[in-house]
Amino acid sequence: MHTYHRDGTLDDARRAAVVAIGDELIGGAVVDANSSAIAEALFGLGIEVERIVAGGDRREPLARLLYELCSTWPIVVATGGLGPTRDDVTRAAAAEAAGVPLLADPEVEERLRRFWRTRGREMPPANLRQTLFPAGAQRMPNSRGTADGFRVWIEGGMLACLPGPPHEMRPMLEGELIPWLERTCGRGEVVLARELHLIGITESGFAERAGNWMARDANPRMGVCAGEGILTVSLRARAGSQEAAGAMLEERSAELAARLGPDLYGVGESQADLARVVGDALRERGLTVATAESCTGGMVAARLVGVPGISEVFLEGWVTYGNRAKVERLGVDPAALAAHGAVSAEVAAQMAAGAAERSGARVAVSTTGIAGPDGGSPEKPVGLVCFGLCRDGELSTLERRFSAGGREYVRRCATNTALDLLRRNLPTGD
Amino acid sequence: MHTYHRDGTLDDARRAAVVAIGDELIGGAVVDANSSAIAEALFGLGIEVERIVAGGDRREPLARLLYELCSTWPIVVATGGLGPTRDDVTRAAAAEAAGVPLLADPEVEERLRRFWRTRGREMPPANLRQTLFPAGAQRMPNSRGTADGFRVWIEGGMLACLPGPPHEMRPMLEGELIPWLERTCGRGEVVLARELHLIGITESGFAERAGNWMARDANPRMGVCAGEGILTVSLRARAGSQEAAGAMLEERSAELAARLGPDLYGVGESQADLARVVGDALRERGLTVATAESCTGGMVAARLVGVPGISEVFLEGWVTYGNRAKVERLGVDPAALAAHGAVSAEVAAQMAAGAAERSGARVAVSTTGIAGPDGGSPEKPVGLVCFGLCRDGELSTLERRFSAGGREYVRRCATNTALDLLRRNLPTGD
Repeated sequence: MHTYHRDGTLDDARRAAVVAIGDELIGGAVVDANSSAIAEALFGLGIEVERIVAGGDRREPLARLLYELCSTWPIVVATGGLGPTRDDVTRAAAAEAAGVPLLADPEVEERLRRFWRTRGREMPPANLRQTLFPAGAQRMPNSRGTADGFRVWIEGGMLACLPGPPHEMRPMLEGELIPWLERTCGRGEVVLARELHLIGITESGFAERAGNWMARDANPRMGVCAGEGILTVSLRARAGSQEAAGAMLEERSAELAARLGPDLYGVGESQADLARVVGDALRERGLTVATAESCTGGMVAARLVGVPGISEVFLEGWVTYGNRAKVERLGVDPAALAAHGAVSAEVAAQMAAGAAERSGARVAVSTTGIAGPDGGSPEKPVGLVCFGLCRDGELSTLERRFSAGGREYVRRCATNTALDLLRRNLPTGD
Repeated sequence: MHTYHRDGTLDDARRAAVVAIGDELIGGAVVDANSSAIAEALFGLGIEVERIVAGGDRREPLARLLYELCSTWPIVVATGGLGPTRDDVTRAAAAEAAGVPLLADPEVEERLRRFWRTRGREMPPANLRQTLFPAGAQRMPNSRGTADGFRVWIEGGMLACLPGPPHEMRPMLEGELIPWLERTCGRGEVVLARELHLIGITESGFAERAGNWMARDANPRMGVCAGEGILTVSLRARAGSQEAAGAMLEERSAELAARLGPDLYGVGESQADLARVVGDALRERGLTVATAESCTGGMVAARLVGVPGISEVFLEGWVTYGNRAKVERLGVDPAALAAHGAVSAEVAAQMAAGAAERSGARVAVSTTGIAGPDGGSPEKPVGLVCFGLCRDGELSTLERRFSAGGREYVRRCATNTALDLLRRNLPTGD
C-alpha cells in the first residue's frame, strides 16, 4: 500500500479520503449525500478527494478502517456515528485508531445539560456519550445539535469527524473544518467552480449547443446533471491565481448565457432554486402572486413560501384537488369541466383567473394534470399537465407532457414548469 | 491489513466490498445510488457488504484499489467504467490487478456490430474497447446496452464488474451476478431485515426504551436513523432458516410496538412515508380531510396529494400565508390575530375550524409558525409552530418548538408533526 509522505505539517496536503459511517449506508437503506458535499467543499480548497468509503458501525473494523485511511491520506474526513446511542461508535473507533483513551469534556457536559434544560427536560444519561473525545482531539462545536465533532491525528494523518445529519454536518463543515483547513494548508492551484441552472432544454439539446466546451480536457471543465426538468451545468476552472480562474469562469459563463438565452434561469448556488429566483424577482418588482393547484397539490405554493421574505408578495394559494373545490373556490365553470374535463387548458385558465381575481394578486399560476399512476387515457395520458397564467388580467395557457417517472416525479416536473411559467411572464413592476 | 482466508472456493464467502468507479462520484457532482442497490441485493443472499468505496477513473490507482480489495474480501463488486470513452478504464485496471492481458472477444465484437447495424449506423471505432476482457474472465451479457460485464479472479477474490448506468447495471446484477452467486455460494445464514418508523420521540428517548436491544451483538441487531422529527429503526435478524429469522423479527417488532405505543406509526418500507400511512387510514375509514397552512405553505397538502387514490377523501387546502387570507378565506377573527398574533394556538384553532366548516371535511389540520430566518422574538422564537385540529367539530391545538436547522428544516418538521396530529386523532369511521 502506498504511503503518503508528510513532513509533520499539512503544507502539501492536497489529497483526501472521505468516510461515511453507518450500517444504514451499506445496508442499502440510505444513499450517502454527505460524502459528495464534503468532496465538493474540499475541492474548493484545491484538495482532491481520491477515495470515498462507506463503513458499518462496528467499532473494531471501523477503527482499522480509520487507521488505514490515515496512514495513506493526510486528510481524512468522517461523517456519522456521533449520536447518543450504542450504535454510534465513531468516538471510540477514532480513539482506538489514534491509540489514545476517550476523555470526558466537562465543558461539553455543561453545554449539553443546558441544551436539555432550555427544552424543559433533564439530559438523558445516553447523551453523556457525546461528552467523550479522544485524548488530544480538537473539538468542533455543533451549532445545530448535541453532537460536537473533533479533529485528531492518527499516524500523521488528520482525521476530522463530523456528525451524520446533513443539517448538522454542513454548518460544521463550512463553519469549522473548511476554515481550519484553509488556515492550515492554504489553497493549492486555484480551482473555482460555478453552476449554471437551466430549464426548458434537454440534455442532448444542451450538448449540441455546448459543442466541444464539453471535451474532457477542456478548461473550464463542463459537466451536466439533469432532473425534474432542470439541467445543472457545472464549470470548473483551474488556474495559477484566483483572478485567472475567475476570469475563465466569467468568460465561459457569458458565452453560455449568449447561446442559451432565457433557458438559463440562474447562476451560482444562490440561484439554484428556481422558486428562489422567481420569488426574488417578484419581491424586487413588488408583484403580488397567488397559486391555484390541482395535481401539484400545494407544491408550487410550498416552494414559493420556502423563499425567505416571500410574505411581502405571496398572498395566498388554493389546493383545489376535486372539481367541487375548483367551482366553489375559484369560480371554474361547471360547463367547462363537463365539456373539456378537469385536465384542460380551459379549466387551467379559469383556475388562474379565479385565483387572481379572489386574491387580488397581479399574477396567478395554476396546475391541473394527471400525475398517475391511474387516471390516464389515450387522449389524456398520465404525465399530461395543463398550466394557466393570469397576468394583470391577461390569460395564457401551456400544455406539457412529462414522460413516465412516477407520480412524484411528474408532480415535481410540473411544479418546476409552473414556476418557470411565472418567471418567463413577469410583468414589469410599477 | 487483515486478510480473509479462503479455501479456494466461495463456500464460506459471506463478506463483500463494493466499489463505484468514476470521477463524477468523487467530484461531488453525483451521488452514488448503485452501491446501495448492490449491497441490498447481496444482503438478500446473506452476504454482508462491509465496505463501499468510490474511486476515480485513473487506471493505475484503480488497479491497486481492486487488488487491495480482492486481497481482503472474497467478493468484490465494481460498477462503472465499462463505457467506450477514454475515461473508462475498469477493463484495463482489472486485467492489471489480475496480472493478465486484455483479450478481444470476437463474439462480442460481432454482437456490437449487429447492435449498431440494427440502429442503421456503423459501429464507432471507440466501441471496440468494449470487446476487451481480462484473459480468463467470465463474461456477463448486457441486455440493455453495449457494455458487457465480467467476473475475474484476483488473488483468490472474485471481482465482478458491472456497468455504471443504473438501468444497465440492475438487470445484470439481478439477472446474472446474483443468480451466479446463489449457485456458487448458496444462501448463507438467512438474514431478514425490517424497518420501524417512529415520530414523537427523540433518539435518546428511544435508546432508553430500547435498552440492551441495541447492544452490538444483539440479534436482531438494531440501528437508528433520525431526521425531520422521524426516527427509523432497522432490525436485522440472522438465523438458520427463513422461518426462524422471520419469527425473531416478528417477536422483536411486537415487543417494540408494546414499548413504543402510538409513537410507532409504521412498519416496513410501504409504511415509511407518514403521509401514506395517514392517507391510507383516511381512505380506509372514508374520512374526508382539508388543510389550512401558513408556515408550511402547502407542504401538508402536497404530501397528502402525493398519496395515490387520495382524491377520494382529500377535499381541498388553503395556503393562507398572510393575515388577510386567514381572515377572508378561513374566517379567522381579526381580534384574535390582534390579541394573540398569527402564531398562536387560538389562530391555529380558528384556521382548522374554518377549513373544516368551509370544505365540509370531517377532519382539518392547520399550521402557523415562525420558520425563520427572521421574525422570531423572545416569546415566540424561530422554530415555534402552532397546530390546530378540527375533528367532527371538536377543536384541539398543539404547540411545538423545532430547534434550529434552517427554514426548510423547520417547515419539514412541522409538516410531519401536522400529519402526525391527524394520525393520532382520526375519528372512527362511520
